[in-house]
Amino acid sequence: MLRMGPLAAAGRLLPAGPRLGPPRPSGGRVSLSRSRPPGPVGDRGLLARQVRAAAGSAGGGRSPALKTPKGTRDHPPAHVALRDRLLAAVVTCFKRHGAAAIDTPVLELRETLTGKYGEDTKLIYELQDQGGELLALRYDLTVPFARYLAMNKITNMKRYHVAKVYRRDNPATTRGRYREFYQCDFDIAGQFDPMIPDAECLKIVHEILSDLQLGDFIIKVNDRRILNGVFAVCGIPESKFITMCSTVDKLDKMPWEEVRSEMVGEKGLSPEAADHIGEYVQLHGGLDLVEQLLQDPKLSQNKLAKEGLGDMKLLFEYLTLFGITGKISFDLSLARGLDYYTGVIFEAVLLQPENDHVEEPVSVGSVAGGGRYDGLVGMFDPKGRKVPCVGVSIGIERIFSILEQRVKAEILYKKDPKLLKQLQYCEDTGIPLAAIIGEQELTDGVVKLRDVATREEVDIPREKLVDEIRRRLEP
Amino acid sequence: MLRMGPLAAAGRLLPAGPRLGPPRPSGGRVSLSRSRPPGPVGDRGLLARQVRAAAGSAGGGRSPALKTPKGTRDHPPAHVALRDRLLAAVVTCFKRHGAAAIDTPVLELRETLTGKYGEDTKLIYELQDQGGELLALRYDLTVPFARYLAMNKITNMKRYHVAKVYRRDNPATTRGRYREFYQCDFDIAGQFDPMIPDAECLKIVHEILSDLQLGDFIIKVNDRRILNGVFAVCGIPESKFITMCSTVDKLDKMPWEEVRSEMVGEKGLSPEAADHIGEYVQLHGGLDLVEQLLQDPKLSQNKLAKEGLGDMKLLFEYLTLFGITGKISFDLSLARGLDYYTGVIFEAVLLQPENDHVEEPVSVGSVAGGGRYDGLVGMFDPKGRKVPCVGVSIGIERIFSILEQRVKAEILYKKDPKLLKQLQYCEDTGIPLAAIIGEQELTDGVVKLRDVATREEVDIPREKLVDEIRRRLEP
Repeated sequence: MLRMGPLAAAGRLLPAGPRLGPPRPSGGRVSLSRSRPPGPVGDRGLLARQVRAAAGSAGGGRSPALKTPKGTRDHPPAHVALRDRLLAAVVTCFKRHGAAAIDTPVLELRETLTGKYGEDTKLIYELQDQGGELLALRYDLTVPFARYLAMNKITNMKRYHVAKVYRRDNPATTRGRYREFYQCDFDIAGQFDPMIPDAECLKIVHEILSDLQLGDFIIKVNDRRILNGVFAVCGIPESKFITMCSTVDKLDKMPWEEVRSEMVGEKGLSPEAADHIGEYVQLHGGLDLVEQLLQDPKLSQNKLAKEGLGDMKLLFEYLTLFGITGKISFDLSLARGLDYYTGVIFEAVLLQPENDHVEEPVSVGSVAGGGRYDGLVGMFDPKGRKVPCVGVSIGIERIFSILEQRVKAEILYKKDPKLLKQLQYCEDTGIPLAAIIGEQELTDGVVKLRDVATREEVDIPREKLVDEIRRRLEP
Repeated sequence: MLRMGPLAAAGRLLPAGPRLGPPRPSGGRVSLSRSRPPGPVGDRGLLARQVRAAAGSAGGGRSPALKTPKGTRDHPPAHVALRDRLLAAVVTCFKRHGAAAIDTPVLELRETLTGKYGEDTKLIYELQDQGGELLALRYDLTVPFARYLAMNKITNMKRYHVAKVYRRDNPATTRGRYREFYQCDFDIAGQFDPMIPDAECLKIVHEILSDLQLGDFIIKVNDRRILNGVFAVCGIPESKFITMCSTVDKLDKMPWEEVRSEMVGEKGLSPEAADHIGEYVQLHGGLDLVEQLLQDPKLSQNKLAKEGLGDMKLLFEYLTLFGITGKISFDLSLARGLDYYTGVIFEAVLLQPENDHVEEPVSVGSVAGGGRYDGLVGMFDPKGRKVPCVGVSIGIERIFSILEQRVKAEILYKKDPKLLKQLQYCEDTGIPLAAIIGEQELTDGVVKLRDVATREEVDIPREKLVDEIRRRLEP
C-alpha cells in the first residue's frame, strides 16, 4: 500500500474552484494577484503553522491515505464542464455520420477479454474472485462492441460509445495518460463496398481534430496485410507476425537502431532479416509510395501485401474525394499494438502546439487510432460467423491535457480578494509562483514575482516576466 | 463460472432496434405485425433448423459464454436515448438548484470504503491484488464525495454527480435492481441555517418525481436521532443502535411480526423491548405526530430524540412554505441501511403505476433516498474536521424500469416487413406472442394471436385481446 508523503499531499490538493490543470508536483502554475497589500504580508506565523500542521499530519501515517488510486484523478466542476463540451463536440460529429449510442457494462467476464490484446493482456484489471463469475474491467470499447454484436446477432450497425476504460499501464499523467480514461469510439459493422467505411473513419478523425483546433496533425495509415507481407518477404515465419507488429510499433518512440536490436536480440531475427524489414518500415509517403510498392518485385508477389496495397490505393482515392489527403501519411512503421486488427490501421498524432502562448510543448502521443478488425466478432459467435468491422477511438483525455495546458494561470474569483488569502491558497495547493501587480508595479512597469515556498519577492520588468517564470519552472 | 443454457440464451438476445425493455425469460412482450402473409407462413423448415442450431451451439459449451456479467446489461441505442433524456431531466433540476458537477474515479482505495456501509460492506466489489494499491469499485457516490471534500479541504459545496456504482447485491432485474447502476446524487456540504439544505433536498425529490410523471408517490422522512432516542428509551445499549437500524429498515419489506422475531431471535432483545420499539416504529403521520412525540413523556426526556423532533418540526415548517407537505410522511419505520447517516433521513416510494395501460404493476421499491451525514467527511480529514452534509440520490434505474414497462410491444421498423422475417425475429429474441392484423382480421374484427414457440394461431375478438394476452403471460 502506498502511503502519501507530505510532498505528494500538497500535489494532490485540488481546489473546487475554476482551476483546470491537474496537480503537478513540479507544477507550472502561476497565481496572478491583482491587488497589492497595504504593507508587509500579514500573519506569516499563521501560515507557517498551517503548513507545518498539514505536512505533519499527512506524513504521520495514522489517518487513512487521502488520495485517489494511482493513475486516476477527480474532476472538479470546471474540469467536468470542459470535458463535457469536448465530448459533446465529438458526439455531434459521430451523430452527423449516422451513428447510434450503445452502452455496455464496465465489468465483463474475464474470458470475454482473454486473447484479444496480445502482450497488453497483463494490463487488464481483474476483480477478486468473491464467488460467482470471474470478472475484469473493460480494457477498451471495441471488444465489448464485438461481444455485443455477436450476442445480439447484429450484422450491421453504425454505433458510437463514449465511456471510461481501465488499463494498469504506467501512468504518465502530464501527458494525459491515466489508468482510468474516456474513450470515444465510432465503429461501422457490416459488409459494405471496400474501403468506404474505412475512409469514413479517417474523415471523422479529420473533422474532429480540425473542429477542436488543436493545431497541425497528421494521420498515419498502414495495413496489417502490408506489414505481414513485408514480414513474409523478409523470411519471418507467420507465427511471429503479431509479436513483430509490437516491435515495429515502437518506432514512434525509439530510433530504428534500438528497434533493430530488439528484433535481433529479443525476437531472434537474423541481422539480415532485420535490415530487410528496416528498409520497408522506414518508408512513408502518399499515393506515390503505394504505387511504388505495388511495383516492388518482391512485395507485389505476396498475396496479402498486394491485397493491402490495392485497398490502400482505393482508400487514397476516397480520401482524395474527401479532400483530406493533405493530412494523411502512408507510414509503414505504423503497426498498432493490439492483436485484433486485420486490415487498415491508422493513428493521428499532433505535430506541434497550435499557438505560441504555450510555453512547454506537451508531448501527447497519438490522439486517435483505429483500424479494421474483421475477425473479432467471429471469435464470439458460437458458429464463428464473421462480421467485418472498422472503427476509430478518439483519445479525448490526451486532447484534454493539451487544452488544460492552455489554462495555466489562475486568479481567485473573489469580490474582495485579500492578498493573504491568495498566498495561503498558493501554499495550500502547491502553486509555486505568485505574480503580484499592484498600483506601484503598474507605475514602475514591473511585476512582483513571489516564490511561494521561500516567500522571496523580486520585481521583474514586464518584458522579462515570461522568461523569468520559464527559467524558474524548469525542472 | 455460469454457462448459458439455451433458454437463457434466448432471453439474453437483445436486438439493436427500437425495443426498450430488458430481456425477460418469462417475457411480457408482444410483437405486433401489421402485414398479413398471402398464404401459410413460409419456410418453417428453415426456422426450425435455425432454432435447433442456435440451441445446440449455445448449449454445447465449446464457445465462451456469450453474456454480460450477472446483474449487468447492455443498453441498445433506444435504451441509451431514453436514459439520456431521463438523466437530462434530473440534471436540469440539480442545476436549477445551483449545483456544479464533479466526477471521481470508479476505483477507490479499499480503505476509503471500509467502515462506511455497515452490513453492506460485503457487497463491495474488490479488485484482485495485482501489485500496488488494494482497490475496490465505488459502492455509492456519497463516500467518494466526502473523500473529495476532505482531500481538497472544501468546506462548502453544492455538487451533483451522475455516475455508475457497483454492488454485489442479489440482482432483481425486473424490478430495476442491477449490480451496475446509475446514481444521480445531489449534496450540500457546509454550515447553513438548520434544516434549510435538508428541506431543499426534499424539494428536489418532489420536483423530479413530479416532472417525470411517474404517478403518485410519498416521501418518508425520519431522523436517526429520533430512532436512536427510541432505542435508548426502550433500553437498547448504544452499541446496538446501528444494527437495530438495519433491522427496523426491513419494515418496508416484511411485517412487524417478522421484524420483531429478528429483534428477539437474532439481535437478542427482550420481547418487552422489542414490543416497546414496535409501538414507536409503526407510527407515521405529519406535523401532528411530531407534536405528539414532543409531548411523549419518555421520548421528550431523551436529548437526541428531542433534538431530532425539534428539527423535524422546523423541517415541516419549511416544507409547508414549499407547499409539498401533502407528499411527506413522517415515518418512524424508516431507518436506511447505511452507517453514515446522523440526522434527517428520507426515502421516496411510488404508490402505484400512473395509468391503466400498465398491465402488471411494477414493484420498484424506493426511487430516491438520502439524508444527513455530518460525520463522514471528518472520517477522512487528517484532523477529523467535520463538514456537515446532506444529500439525496435519485434511483434512475428503477424509474427507468417503470418507463420501460410502458413500452412492451414492438413493431419491426421496415418499409416492407415480410411476416416470415418478423416471426423469425420473435423466435430469435424470445418474444412469446405475435399479434397479426391483416385485412381479413380487420374485416372480422379479430386479431390473430400466434404462440411463437408452438406456432399455434388463434383468432381472438379484439375486445378480448388484452385479457387473452394477460392470461397467457401469467407466470
